[in-house]
Order: sequence, then structure tokens, then C-alpha cells
Amino acid sequence: MAEKDLLLKTAETEKISHIDYFNIAISVDCVIFGYEDKELKVLLIKSDLKEFEGMYSLLGDLIRPGEDLDAASYRVLKERTGLDDVYLEQVHAFGSINRHPSGRVITIAYYSLIDIGHHKLQLSHNELNWHSINELGKLAFDHSLILETCLKQLRERIEDHPIVFNLLPEKFSLRQLQELYEAILGVELDRRNFRKKISLKGWLKDLNEMEKNLSHRPGKLYTLKSKLKT
Amino acid sequence: MAEKDLLLKTAETEKISHIDYFNIAISVDCVIFGYEDKELKVLLIKSDLKEFEGMYSLLGDLIRPGEDLDAASYRVLKERTGLDDVYLEQVHAFGSINRHPSGRVITIAYYSLIDIGHHKLQLSHNELNWHSINELGKLAFDHSLILETCLKQLRERIEDHPIVFNLLPEKFSLRQLQELYEAILGVELDRRNFRKKISLKGWLKDLNEMEKNLSHRPGKLYTLKSKLKT
Repeated sequence: MAEKDLLLKTAETEKISHIDYFNIAISVDCVIFGYEDKELKVLLIKSDLKEFEGMYSLLGDLIRPGEDLDAASYRVLKERTGLDDVYLEQVHAFGSINRHPSGRVITIAYYSLIDIGHHKLQLSHNELNWHSINELGKLAFDHSLILETCLKQLRERIEDHPIVFNLLPEKFSLRQLQELYEAILGVELDRRNFRKKISLKGWLKDLNEMEKNLSHRPGKLYTLKSKLKT
Repeated sequence: MAEKDLLLKTAETEKISHIDYFNIAISVDCVIFGYEDKELKVLLIKSDLKEFEGMYSLLGDLIRPGEDLDAASYRVLKERTGLDDVYLEQVHAFGSINRHPSGRVITIAYYSLIDIGHHKLQLSHNELNWHSINELGKLAFDHSLILETCLKQLRERIEDHPIVFNLLPEKFSLRQLQELYEAILGVELDRRNFRKKISLKGWLKDLNEMEKNLSHRPGKLYTLKSKLKT
């Protein structure tokens, strides 16, 4: 049997025949990780939906007609925190049928890493605050799942990519770097193995400086090689 | 100044006040990679939209009302190819404003790796065929960008994850494995370095068998350790 000729349709007829498919809204949700007091933290806001009264949620919003996904995520961050010099990376789309009480809303999750000390929040709405990832209750919507997914991706990425340095000050000791890895991974690491592994990566530049004014023995200070900065 | 009490809204009023946000359609697009004749290939279909007449596109469709993202991607694959035992992984959401001529359509891209020899396509619509990634013209929609993004992710993942074995038969030689890595990465690899690196991963089980009926010197046969199979 010969193959039939391909019947072409136009974009217009395609839309008309699928008009009830065009009734979804898209949101972005930003998982902003920070590091403070040897703890990995995440930026949360009180939900303003009655259905989630008293619960915290990620920073998010519906994308506007005519707005790109990435642009929407940067807008949300700017509007809610005043921050505009933060790198956001797309992680995953979440589209379970009943995830949003307003109707079908599919959300695109982004994550970011920022140094809390150097990124003071400039705005404060709806009890916007840093929360330790070890002390979180259930979040609004499916935001617990979204946070978990982003945390899993973060834990995988830090093994091979020099990204955690966005959570640290410019100069840091190997002790500080190890504490940060331990906070993210949620496990204690062997000091010698950790230093050997980090050394093999070739990410660090020795500054020939020592830590000052500390209760413990001062360590050497390092910085991320400038070509690796993001 | 005291912080104001948080004004709550309901999901219903939230939807009413954003009704023109709920007019987006979502699609899934599947980048199915295969391996044949020492070439990395991708499964493409002739576009059935007049706007893209004569061009090839990825396997995709709009998600149906009441259909999950992952379910939609498996449905598309099943409907177009007959395949239903293939693992799909979500990669990225693409949402440029004018990417689809029918209106605002955001697409979620998935990719998969299959052994062409062991997954015969059971259906044949719209000139569904394998295309070498080295001989592709411009694809319909933003599908060239989507393919490129998935290929980049594939190239990164194969460095540390034992996933390429889905493209190979059950038993293979180190020569075959190296040829596959070279096809995916698009570069030639040094034989000794490659074997050392692979050996360090600890992924392979030596079968104590040799290749047969070959024009070149037969090599030892290996298989992926069973606990690593996906």
C-alpha cells in the first residue's frame, strides 16, 4: 500500500480544533538557596491564598501574556526581594492536574544560590524570610516537591560544577568550604578526603593570606579562579 | 510602621482577576536518540503544519485537558512509534513568545536513548525516520534549539552517568563503547585514556567472552553491571 500524501493543516485550523486546550496558565517558582550560620536556607513567603492560609510558599507568579519564562522568573525575584543581580537556572516543569486550586496551572521551577551576607533583601512583603531547609513544615501547593527536586539537583551539580561559591564570600577557608558542602549534602565529610577531592578539581586559587580574628586556628584563604565565576 | 495584615484571596477570585492568563496551551516534544552505523541519530517526522511545509519536527503534541506532562510524552511516543518500553527524561521548558504560530504554546522537552536494532518502529506516519545528527537541516518551530539543548545535556550526562548503554546491545566491546562516545561527543578519543577512564567508573562486567565473526581483531565482551541498568 502506497503511503498517503501528508494532509497539511494551518496553524489557525489547528488552534480552532483544539480551542479547549488553550486554557492553561503558566507560573514560575523560584527556589532561592542561601547559606548562613552553617545552614542551607531557602527564601519563603507566606501564601496569600485562602486555600493555603498560614502556609509558606516559594516565590512565584503567573507569567504574563507576552512574557518569556526566564523574564518572568527574574521579574518575580526583583518584585519580591529587590534583587536583580542573581543568576537563576531552570530546573523542571511541574504539571500535575490538580496542583493549583485556580485551575490548570503548570509551573516552571528555577533555582539560584546567593550569599545572604552580600544580598540584603530590600523589600519585605508577606513575611518574606530565610528558612533553614532542616526546619520546614509542609509548603503550599506542591512546593515541598519542587524544593526537594531543586535540592536534589543542587546536590548532584555541586559534585562536578563550581557553583557553591555563589553562597560564600569572595575569600574563604577550606574549613568554610567543607562546612558549606556538609550543609548542602546533609552529611559530615572526612576532612582529608574532602581536601584531596577539592584539590583535584583545580577550582581554587591560593591567596597567600590567612584568616584573622578567629577562635580556632586560622586557615589559609582561597578564592574561586576568576575564569570559573558565574 | 507595623507590618500590615496579609490580605488573603481565594483561588476563585485569583482566577477571575487573571482570566486572560489562562489561555496558554502546553505541548511535549520528545527527542528520541538512537545509535546506528556508528552515528548518533534522532527520530523526526514531517511537520503537518502548512507553516512548516516540507520541514521535519520532533515527535510532539499538545497535552490534553486532564493529562499529566509525563503521561503526554509517553502517549506521543506510543501513538507515533508504537514504542512503550522506553524511558523518557524531562529536560527543559521552552516558552518564547512567538515559538508557535497557533498562539502561545509552551513546550516541555523530553529525551530518550534507544537501541535502534532492538526497538523496531511499529508504525510509520508522516515519513517518521531516523536522521543522523550530522545531517540535519533547520527543523520546524524552535526544534533545532530544543534538539541542541537535549544533545548538550546528553553530552554532559554521559561523563558521569551510565546511560549510553541504552543505545547498545546487551553485550559490547570497548571498541564499540568508544565509538558510541565518539559519535555522541562528536570528537575522536584517545584509546588508552578512554579505557582508563571507563575502567575507573566501575560500570562494566567482563563476560569472559570474545567478539566473533569480525574483520578486525576480536575484543573482549562486556555488559553493564545489572544494578546500574535503567
